[in-house]
Amino acid sequence: MAVNLHIPADHEIYPIAGIEIGVTEAGIRKADRRDLTVFRLSEGTSVAGVFTRNRFRAAPVTVCERHLASTTGIRALVINTGNANAGTGETGLQAAEQTCAALGALLGTKADQIMPFSTGVILEQLPVDRLIAGLPGAIANLSETNWVSAAHGIMTTDTLPKIYSQRVEIGGKTVTLTGISKGAGMIRPNMATMLGFLGTDAGIDQGLLTSLAKEVADVSFNRITVDGDTSTNDSFIIMATGKSGLTISNTTDPNYQILKAALAEAAADLAQKIVRDAEGATKFMTVQVEQAKDVDEALLVAYAVAQSPLVKTAFFASDPNLGRIVCAVGYAGIPDLDVSHVNLWLGDVHVVLDGGRNPSYQEADGQRIMKEAEIVMRIGLGRGTASDTVYTCDFSHEYVSINADYRS
Amino acid sequence: MAVNLHIPADHEIYPIAGIEIGVTEAGIRKADRRDLTVFRLSEGTSVAGVFTRNRFRAAPVTVCERHLASTTGIRALVINTGNANAGTGETGLQAAEQTCAALGALLGTKADQIMPFSTGVILEQLPVDRLIAGLPGAIANLSETNWVSAAHGIMTTDTLPKIYSQRVEIGGKTVTLTGISKGAGMIRPNMATMLGFLGTDAGIDQGLLTSLAKEVADVSFNRITVDGDTSTNDSFIIMATGKSGLTISNTTDPNYQILKAALAEAAADLAQKIVRDAEGATKFMTVQVEQAKDVDEALLVAYAVAQSPLVKTAFFASDPNLGRIVCAVGYAGIPDLDVSHVNLWLGDVHVVLDGGRNPSYQEADGQRIMKEAEIVMRIGLGRGTASDTVYTCDFSHEYVSINADYRS
Repeated sequence: MAVNLHIPADHEIYPIAGIEIGVTEAGIRKADRRDLTVFRLSEGTSVAGVFTRNRFRAAPVTVCERHLASTTGIRALVINTGNANAGTGETGLQAAEQTCAALGALLGTKADQIMPFSTGVILEQLPVDRLIAGLPGAIANLSETNWVSAAHGIMTTDTLPKIYSQRVEIGGKTVTLTGISKGAGMIRPNMATMLGFLGTDAGIDQGLLTSLAKEVADVSFNRITVDGDTSTNDSFIIMATGKSGLTISNTTDPNYQILKAALAEAAADLAQKIVRDAEGATKFMTVQVEQAKDVDEALLVAYAVAQSPLVKTAFFASDPNLGRIVCAVGYAGIPDLDVSHVNLWLGDVHVVLDGGRNPSYQEADGQRIMKEAEIVMRIGLGRGTASDTVYTCDFSHEYVSINADYRS
Repeated sequence: MAVNLHIPADHEIYPIAGIEIGVTEAGIRKADRRDLTVFRLSEGTSVAGVFTRNRFRAAPVTVCERHLASTTGIRALVINTGNANAGTGETGLQAAEQTCAALGALLGTKADQIMPFSTGVILEQLPVDRLIAGLPGAIANLSETNWVSAAHGIMTTDTLPKIYSQRVEIGGKTVTLTGISKGAGMIRPNMATMLGFLGTDAGIDQGLLTSLAKEVADVSFNRITVDGDTSTNDSFIIMATGKSGLTISNTTDPNYQILKAALAEAAADLAQKIVRDAEGATKFMTVQVEQAKDVDEALLVAYAVAQSPLVKTAFFASDPNLGRIVCAVGYAGIPDLDVSHVNLWLGDVHVVLDGGRNPSYQEADGQRIMKEAEIVMRIGLGRGTASDTVYTCDFSHEYVSINADYRS
């Protein structure tokens, strides 16, 4: 049951000139399931990515970074579900490279112009023969209008497809941004078990796009958590084809900030959709931490609260057991935190005043907010002026069911 | 459903000369429930404690430390359930001091010779009047044989009482160790929502006992985790009455190591019993990390694995989805971890060999181990010679139910 997850109607989903998508059933793990997706990119498309910092990074992540560094032009992406190709050692790396070579041969590009992505079970070898056998079917399906199909094609335990599409006027040109993402579990930043692919027909200099992708990830995919498990495969990719006629080469371009804001909005939407459709989620929670000494400290507290199983089960139950939030603030890891300066608001209700229960707080007010599907927690630390925000969801029976049964 | 939690028979529970216990129903939160426990200690008893490092430490924890520092002789403990007296500000501190003053007046001691302990809901004021009104009933009940009753009296969501009792010969004297603990949720070291009280009739110099309590906690209560939530109230107390005739004043005493080992065994048993009866636990898991550069690093990895909701739900399901363990090792936070040196054993089954799936690993073997109620995971990092061990449990539907309904 996803929380207020908006799926744009077909006519609201704008293709990106220069990006074609093909989706097929390759039978990687299960039959009758779209599990193989290919993106073909027109020549001159800039591509940049941000990848998991898990030390057990999956083979495709290693290959992606290798290919991004070695080539001047990425021309295609290939994404499979059903198997993460992680913890698979040298065999896994060879499987990912083989996949790229096979797709490159079919598309007439070099192997290092392909980026591979995998999501699914860890520690099992990728069935690379079935994957490669599926590639011609994906290529036969290539079309600029296949974004919805791709959003389905990359799903694992997601219950709904995640799509963002928008047109903005920048510098007199109509620029389109369309993207998809997937997530569901094993989600916390740097990065999540999540894949995000954002296309735009703006033209962005390759070097600029590389730094921009990191900045955009840091306000979107790197600000969500479901269960604190940082996956082995997380990848967020921006592809900029330049077909709109707008081209940006440096940060001093007056249109740079406008485009960056549009990309950030798109990525935040795609990231938050992952939380809205997280495994078992019934509520969408925003944790804002303010008055921190620095952003690191704000995030430390925000994640402690957002990842506390006790906080998350209380929200599931709509139980204003708000001491659990306070407790998480206390163990977050700020050694010199003076709790007598800590304040907490739940929605518009001031619950904790200077470290203790606000005398005017009524449990009925807390209860009213807890029953909502979208809840904002605001925590003031009284230490400085830095702030940051993390998005998460509650923790339900359904989460346990899904993760206990995932492979069955 | 607790996992292999041994409750000693009545005749196996040895009183500690010099420690009397009284338990009563004070109606602190619910009626018809033993919720108030008093320990009276004979003059000359040494007492030392280890307390939560949560910055939102509860009022009684602050008062305990204050009294330990200001007095030379603790003469009683008072423990209530139903309310944690945490996040209660100055009012909470006054309530804890009032409790000590009232008990001191009844027992003929000074207020600062009393240590108060609370466990229960956070962010609500302690009903100190009901607590104080209950004290005479607890005092009337004082007896050296009330350990079982006390083990019940300090329970919250625990399903079973946790008791340890043992006699050992040290230096020609029979030394008795008897203790109780409670836990259930909001449990991870430094410390857990847990209370542990360990009595012995050995005599231990006060200064020595203070350092000893920390050492003993670090191999017991500071090595368990249920949900990663470090509570506001955790306290572990050792009381040494000296009535056995054995007295130890310094670490060079030949009997010191023997006593320390006996205390460590007692504390480890009481701590592990908390995990065995953790909220919703169906399995008891031991996470051993070896070949780390140092102990901090070993613990970083052990806790990442022990606290991963994905690992814990996989164990609940008896599903050998062991990639989740590998994933947790990868995100534990060792920046220069070379995963090609990582090995994983599940029981006697070698699952991960040098960072990849062991070619000889058969899923049936993993499945066999996963079905057991007690599971040992051994993780080799291939970086050094340090090792450490953490104890945890699985993550079940029942955990969500208990924590969603706790206050209802």
